[in-house]
Amino acid sequence: MKIVTFGEVMLQLHPYGYERILQTDGYRARYAGAEINVAVDLACLGDDVEYVTKLPENDVAQNAINGARHFGVGTSRIVRGGDRIGIFFLEKGADHRPSKVIYDRAHSAIAESKREDYNWDSIFDGADWFHFSGITPALGGELLDICLDACRAAKERGMTISFDPNYRAKLWTMEQAAKTIKQITSYVDVLIVNENQAQQFFDVQIPKNERSGDDITDEGYRYLAEQISKAYGIKTVALAERRTFSVDENSFCAKLYDGEKIYSSEKYRMRMVDRVGSGDAFAAGLLYALRHDFDPSDAIRFAAAASCLNHSIEGDYNILSVGEVMALAKGSTSGMVQR
Amino acid sequence: MKIVTFGEVMLQLHPYGYERILQTDGYRARYAGAEINVAVDLACLGDDVEYVTKLPENDVAQNAINGARHFGVGTSRIVRGGDRIGIFFLEKGADHRPSKVIYDRAHSAIAESKREDYNWDSIFDGADWFHFSGITPALGGELLDICLDACRAAKERGMTISFDPNYRAKLWTMEQAAKTIKQITSYVDVLIVNENQAQQFFDVQIPKNERSGDDITDEGYRYLAEQISKAYGIKTVALAERRTFSVDENSFCAKLYDGEKIYSSEKYRMRMVDRVGSGDAFAAGLLYALRHDFDPSDAIRFAAAASCLNHSIEGDYNILSVGEVMALAKGSTSGMVQR
Amino acid sequence: MKIVTFGEVMLQLHPYGYERILQTDGYRARYAGAEINVAVDLACLGDDVEYVTKLPENDVAQNAINGARHFGVGTSRIVRGGDRIGIFFLEKGADHRPSKVIYDRAHSAIAESKREDYNWDSIFDGADWFHFSGITPALGGELLDICLDACRAAKERGMTISFDPNYRAKLWTMEQAAKTIKQITSYVDVLIVNENQAQQFFDVQIPKNERSGDDITDEGYRYLAEQISKAYGIKTVALAERRTFSVDENSFCAKLYDGEKIYSSEKYRMRMVDRVGSGDAFAAGLLYALRHDFDPSDAIRFAAAASCLNHSIEGDYNILSVGEVMALAKGSTSGMVQR
Amino acid sequence: MKIVTFGEVMLQLHPYGYERILQTDGYRARYAGAEINVAVDLACLGDDVEYVTKLPENDVAQNAINGARHFGVGTSRIVRGGDRIGIFFLEKGADHRPSKVIYDRAHSAIAESKREDYNWDSIFDGADWFHFSGITPALGGELLDICLDACRAAKERGMTISFDPNYRAKLWTMEQAAKTIKQITSYVDVLIVNENQAQQFFDVQIPKNERSGDDITDEGYRYLAEQISKAYGIKTVALAERRTFSVDENSFCAKLYDGEKIYSSEKYRMRMVDRVGSGDAFAAGLLYALRHDFDPSDAIRFAAAASCLNHSIEGDYNILSVGEVMALAKGSTSGMVQR
Amino acid sequence: MKIVTFGEVMLQLHPYGYERILQTDGYRARYAGAEINVAVDLACLGDDVEYVTKLPENDVAQNAINGARHFGVGTSRIVRGGDRIGIFFLEKGADHRPSKVIYDRAHSAIAESKREDYNWDSIFDGADWFHFSGITPALGGELLDICLDACRAAKERGMTISFDPNYRAKLWTMEQAAKTIKQITSYVDVLIVNENQAQQFFDVQIPKNERSGDDITDEGYRYLAEQISKAYGIKTVALAERRTFSVDENSFCAKLYDGEKIYSSEKYRMRMVDRVGSGDAFAAGLLYALRHDFDPSDAIRFAAAASCLNHSIEGDYNILSVGEVMALAKGSTSGMVQR
Amino acid sequence: MKIVTFGEVMLQLHPYGYERILQTDGYRARYAGAEINVAVDLACLGDDVEYVTKLPENDVAQNAINGARHFGVGTSRIVRGGDRIGIFFLEKGADHRPSKVIYDRAHSAIAESKREDYNWDSIFDGADWFHFSGITPALGGELLDICLDACRAAKERGMTISFDPNYRAKLWTMEQAAKTIKQITSYVDVLIVNENQAQQFFDVQIPKNERSGDDITDEGYRYLAEQISKAYGIKTVALAERRTFSVDENSFCAKLYDGEKIYSSEKYRMRMVDRVGSGDAFAAGLLYALRHDFDPSDAIRFAAAASCLNHSIEGDYNILSVGEVMALAKGSTSGMVQR
Repeated sequence: MKIVTFGEVMLQLHPYGYERILQTDGYRARYAGAEINVAVDLACLGDDVEYVTKLPENDVAQNAINGARHFGVGTSRIVRGGDRIGIFFLEKGADHRPSKVIYDRAHSAIAESKREDYNWDSIFDGADWFHFSGITPALGGELLDICLDACRAAKERGMTISFDPNYRAKLWTMEQAAKTIKQITSYVDVLIVNENQAQQFFDVQIPKNERSGDDITDEGYRYLAEQISKAYGIKTVALAERRTFSVDENSFCAKLYDGEKIYSSEKYRMRMVDRVGSGDAFAAGLLYALRHDFDPSDAIRFAAAASCLNHSIEGDYNILSVGEVMALAKGSTSGMVQR
Repeated sequence: MKIVTFGEVMLQLHPYGYERILQTDGYRARYAGAEINVAVDLACLGDDVEYVTKLPENDVAQNAINGARHFGVGTSRIVRGGDRIGIFFLEKGADHRPSKVIYDRAHSAIAESKREDYNWDSIFDGADWFHFSGITPALGGELLDICLDACRAAKERGMTISFDPNYRAKLWTMEQAAKTIKQITSYVDVLIVNENQAQQFFDVQIPKNERSGDDITDEGYRYLAEQISKAYGIKTVALAERRTFSVDENSFCAKLYDGEKIYSSEKYRMRMVDRVGSGDAFAAGLLYALRHDFDPSDAIRFAAAASCLNHSIEGDYNILSVGEVMALAKGSTSGMVQR
Repeated sequence: MKIVTFGEVMLQLHPYGYERILQTDGYRARYAGAEINVAVDLACLGDDVEYVTKLPENDVAQNAINGARHFGVGTSRIVRGGDRIGIFFLEKGADHRPSKVIYDRAHSAIAESKREDYNWDSIFDGADWFHFSGITPALGGELLDICLDACRAAKERGMTISFDPNYRAKLWTMEQAAKTIKQITSYVDVLIVNENQAQQFFDVQIPKNERSGDDITDEGYRYLAEQISKAYGIKTVALAERRTFSVDENSFCAKLYDGEKIYSSEKYRMRMVDRVGSGDAFAAGLLYALRHDFDPSDAIRFAAAASCLNHSIEGDYNILSVGEVMALAKGSTSGMVQR
Repeated sequence: MKIVTFGEVMLQLHPYGYERILQTDGYRARYAGAEINVAVDLACLGDDVEYVTKLPENDVAQNAINGARHFGVGTSRIVRGGDRIGIFFLEKGADHRPSKVIYDRAHSAIAESKREDYNWDSIFDGADWFHFSGITPALGGELLDICLDACRAAKERGMTISFDPNYRAKLWTMEQAAKTIKQITSYVDVLIVNENQAQQFFDVQIPKNERSGDDITDEGYRYLAEQISKAYGIKTVALAERRTFSVDENSFCAKLYDGEKIYSSEKYRMRMVDRVGSGDAFAAGLLYALRHDFDPSDAIRFAAAASCLNHSIEGDYNILSVGEVMALAKGSTSGMVQR
Repeated sequence: MKIVTFGEVMLQLHPYGYERILQTDGYRARYAGAEINVAVDLACLGDDVEYVTKLPENDVAQNAINGARHFGVGTSRIVRGGDRIGIFFLEKGADHRPSKVIYDRAHSAIAESKREDYNWDSIFDGADWFHFSGITPALGGELLDICLDACRAAKERGMTISFDPNYRAKLWTMEQAAKTIKQITSYVDVLIVNENQAQQFFDVQIPKNERSGDDITDEGYRYLAEQISKAYGIKTVALAERRTFSVDENSFCAKLYDGEKIYSSEKYRMRMVDRVGSGDAFAAGLLYALRHDFDPSDAIRFAAAASCLNHSIEGDYNILSVGEVMALAKGSTSGMVQR
Repeated sequence: MKIVTFGEVMLQLHPYGYERILQTDGYRARYAGAEINVAVDLACLGDDVEYVTKLPENDVAQNAINGARHFGVGTSRIVRGGDRIGIFFLEKGADHRPSKVIYDRAHSAIAESKREDYNWDSIFDGADWFHFSGITPALGGELLDICLDACRAAKERGMTISFDPNYRAKLWTMEQAAKTIKQITSYVDVLIVNENQAQQFFDVQIPKNERSGDDITDEGYRYLAEQISKAYGIKTVALAERRTFSVDENSFCAKLYDGEKIYSSEKYRMRMVDRVGSGDAFAAGLLYALRHDFDPSDAIRFAAAASCLNHSIEGDYNILSVGEVMALAKGSTSGMVQR
């Protein structure tokens, strides 16, 4: 049985190395988007994935499809039409200089797509899981309705739905986002959210004695997950905790609530080659683990290791085998060359 | 006294070397557009040029400005605002495989600009010449009115106006173009047009006995230019004749009508490094010659040599000194290394 | 219904640009092989193709699979195992300096594969056509038996078999090749062969009055095809005629015999960007045309145009749409930029 | 009103990435020099800057001018003539391996330039500030006299003069430098100097109780600045404190003395992408702040932030907007991607 | 008098930058192997070195020879013949992602070489020192016998023999290695080994009270070296201690036992540009020091500094002058640009 | 016995591909000079060559030495010292745009070298042939005297001297050159000169009836060679005839006079990848043939084929084996891939 992801893919153009956009005369072209990232990551881990979006009929958009196909993602359900694929320019930061994104995503084929473009019955044929992020409804137009169509169709078929709110301030306000996200969450089985957004969107306050500064106790996380779980009837809540020390040094740790207990991953400190895509790598790692019936403790450790390793890989896609993720999840910290 | 050009500049993204878009994972970024090309070409030849357009406030657009400034073009009159800079993807053909362009230019800042964005009195301060091409009004919206505003302001100041119809089938139909172009032509002093479009837009038939197959006699060209000249009150008409033998082999020749006689350039056969920008190089070469009072025969030879050399230069911009153009115009055909 | 191709894929390493191997410190990596080339070419044209080979379980071999998947080729029937993927180093010639190949292909997984590695019933499920070249049996070991197994299985299922002898002097002698190729030809429905090898392998002499120097009349080609057709019971014979003027200037023309008449393509003269892969492009173009029921005259014109265009594309793969091939086949010779 | 900087610009050739010169077969070409760096940095911040030097009439030198013009620096006062532009080869160090410079700067156009080459009245037209570094007089020939000419002309016009001693051991000895620098300092209004050189050139000893090891108290710095200020009649003294932990890890902090008090910046610890140019970035940041009437505390914080950020940018030029510098100066330490 | 090294050289292909093999479409080509690394390192330091191996007659193998000759290594004793040069693909790790090697070295010319291929009398003409590593006998076939032939010939000529066991788990088991290494060690004068392998191969247990966790006392190291020294009659034993904190952060320290005392180097902590080749850099540094009669304390400090610096250089070859190594060995830790 | 060449080597910096210097931000670095070119070419053909020059002690100069050593040239006689290595910037032309060179060679180590720098007795130890070009004495300073010293020392040892006048207009006038070249020619055994310079330097007029336009009869060439031969006592005169049709299309043909008859090579028409170095390739090809006792007809065919092939190779060095040159010299014109 396969998993379906749905959302926008954009052409990502970024200067080579650490050059600023104001210095560059060429761009490395990659394709990225929360849901295509999750799809590729899962395909690399060996899962059967179908990625759905809408793309125009031209070679620049075709490259997005070919790139997903390259890693084994199913692309036969992608709707073709519309005027353009969204573009964003990404400048990689370093040290005290932050990374910078210039979006040119308005008027993309998916943003202007209509409910009748998607035949969810046909799309979900052979699938048991549906995943998307909050970026998809944030694109506006008919996208929220389209997402709700998909959720209803998935529920009718008894599929599992996972969702990552993935707030982007350039797309909508916190208020708009919160309202929509709560509406979607009522369909969701697995919620994947960073601890910060979890508190903001779902209006949950972690008790004062469970937090000091940036540190939150496991009990604090359990409380946060439990509140959301109860309010929206979600059994599985995954919480990601990222701390940033500089542009290229972060820590990452994650928690899993299974309706009862809270499970914690290793806390990794990372010197990063490439920052983007690690949230999606976390989601993909978690989905892989849940779909392969890992026990909760192993699942959250696997998901965090997948996210950690993503920081060492150029580009959003988390090109990793199960063995490679497992090696880190199980605690191998050897820096020896494997020869 | 300076010359002002007005039109769209786009980000041109093209795969390295002869790779197809479907093969590439990176793009060389250049900026191009008929009027910025003419501006840069003239600046390289040493003229005082001001380039006017509208561009958004972001680093990708700023690079277009910096690139023009690099070659000495004045950019202080550029209007800032709007959402995006237009983009086009260019795939270089070879042998029997044609070059290919994918446009993503809709919703650009200039295409959505308004008449009140441009203060022509201020823009034309210190200028004696105004140049633009038919691509500018073809962008739609208020652009035709903006161009007419500019023409009227220029005429009031006694400036010379040069114009290149530069028909692009993806922007408008021949009928739409013909109507608009005739309207503009009534303000024009110097018309620069390829012989093919000249016949189509201005409904002139070269007498049968002055053409055989692709070949047109000088008398035929004189007749064509004279008819246009009379109908629109234009004293100077330049006609470009391109013949294509393969994707990378063309010939180029040009004619100048000064209201009386027709003057002809050398006919060059070129094996091309880069095809795009040579029409603008011809325009720039001609404007340079006319502004520096070359006699008609020298002027058209200089303009054709400038266009010929453009085919040997990567990118649209014709990075050439007066000496280099003059050397070819005067007949140096030496292939020796200059050492 | 899909088409299956079977043969070796190698890692092709070639210096960037025109550098010699003795000058280089880096290699562009592509993957190539007669049958994977045909598979990718057909997938680009939109056909349903399955490519079969044997490859070891490592990332270098995985890249070959991913690259085929990228263009939409089915790879799920590829057998995994063995020690290595074959490698060859390719140095691109120019002018009077020939291209040069250094093979390092011994001990590859496919060359050491066994009959029991391939389950043809399962491989041919859903297929109506089988294609391979003479390189596959030339790899030695059990490969000839494996090819004969495949031919018998294909025949039992009523599939069409196409075959390109594709002689490589570094793999076997003319005598060895001729013996094996005749054995295979008895199973073949569509034979694709260059005119030179056709005469050598099948011992046919074109009558003297049908040739002068390098020139062969259509009647001469008809005679050659008819003799082979009669001797081996093949209805369709395609003959390729290449003439080399320099390392980067060739001509190409092709003939199709349908059991009765000979049909001729346009004769193209090409200035080549990349020479390798054009024979496979011809085969793929022909197979596409035959599978889509083009009439013989259109089929051979389409196949030759596909081969001609391959010379303008970097790498072996002929990344072309049906529309692009058709445009040349129908005689468009415009060198204009498509904008 | 504009600021004028005067000094040498050299062609900087450095191997790509971390390659040693002994490993490379290609060089990235940039242009650098203390005063052109300051000019470009100020232009990026939005100031009106004119850069003065002497350069030969060839394309390699023209690239230096075009590159400055690119960022908006005025270059119309540059004197043309002489034989060559100076060159230096720069090898980027890493970890325990120091960066390395090979100079090939003798006989440059500016080093051999004459007093009569520069018409300071014309150069200073419209300017209210003059800046240069100790490298300029260190070039020898008539350069010291030329600098003194400039200082006198600037003083006559009531312009402010800023100066950075910028000692280079390969150009002159400490003794030669000290003598010249003191001579120049008598014209200077704003002195920018690292604390180490300040003590050496101006023979000031910070009291023992104000220093321990590498650490100097603010009172120590105040004492140092006050002594220099009194001796040379300079109101504003900026002191830079750099500490090196490894080739790519440094700290930077700066102090400003306004004739009365000492003001201190944040102390930054930096993991560097590129070390060169950060001293000039400090100077430019300070000049920007002083010219825009920041109060002393804000000024030194702004200057230090500009210098800190320069370590994260490839090349000498500090391509930063006021907003970007301000964000760090105001304490934003977020490593989040800006999206 | 010269030193001779003997062993395999392979073509090392690695993706540019931090790309994974699964992401790359091109490889940087270098050549590497324990003994060619030592030879090049010594040639860079200025020693007279001859490198011996067996390589086929093709351009890919010729590049290995040319690359050694480039740095001044003698290559006239290299035996030509056989089918192929071994290849390995190297993927550079980062942070928590380990580096990865894919070997394709079977059937190489040296691995299939015969005793009669090597005329040791002629090879050792003019030499006083012979060096090789445990990789050479590990290649199998006749290589152990060939190594023993060389050792006997060297001993007969009174040459010094140095040896680095250099265990590679992909070539043989610990048991196979231990047996062979002990056999070779009986000929050896200078043993260079990492502390870990030293304990395993020679069955020596450092007394418990001389170690705590990863830390070993100098007395512990003395004990280890003494035991090996006594058992195999080796006067000089060098022990390398590497500790890995992450994929790109390691520490390195080394000890030298001269038959009596133990001498210790500085302990370096390194942030690595490139990990591979540092063991060979240590061996080369030590051999240089011993051959130039450094006293033991200086020798081990020089060797460790050479190894430390290798981590800052791209590729295996340690392209360093004696002065550069000495500067670090003597304690210069300045991160200043040398200008 | 070995051959010694003597002259300047410069760092050649050229933009990648067809970019103009005004467009580039990076340079490919090669090393070139008439005599190092001849040395490398001969080493590639397998001869024993020693190259002599003077170079400063820095890494940029060391790269020139390493690059020659790479191809097997002896470099142990190179004198070290002086301030700089000469540099030239090379911009590759195309079609109607000529190649362009910017020299920055003044003050190079060799140009400022002294007679006492060179110990010709030691340099010529083991040598039987000395070769240099007219560029060496054209460098000025003591170079003419140094060349004459070398010639006298060579003559005393009974060595053969070959010389190529190689006129460069940027170094001296025709008059200066002619005087010096005649002085040197009196020592010369083998003169290699293009037909044009031969007539100018040695004041020989080919009889009118032996030339028409650019065409010269073999008798005309015999007359020219005989006149020079008689006047200067030279037995062997080689004449090169180049005709330029465009920047990248030339023809080349050569003649050899052996004191009696004139022998002619094939006339090649070349579409060039890289123009520079082909004159030196001709000299090297001829020297190889003469030193290996080819008969005159074979010698001139070999030399011309070597020169022709050089146009297909990037860079000045003619990286070719004897077999590759021989294949063309013997008339193989096959453009087939060698596989």
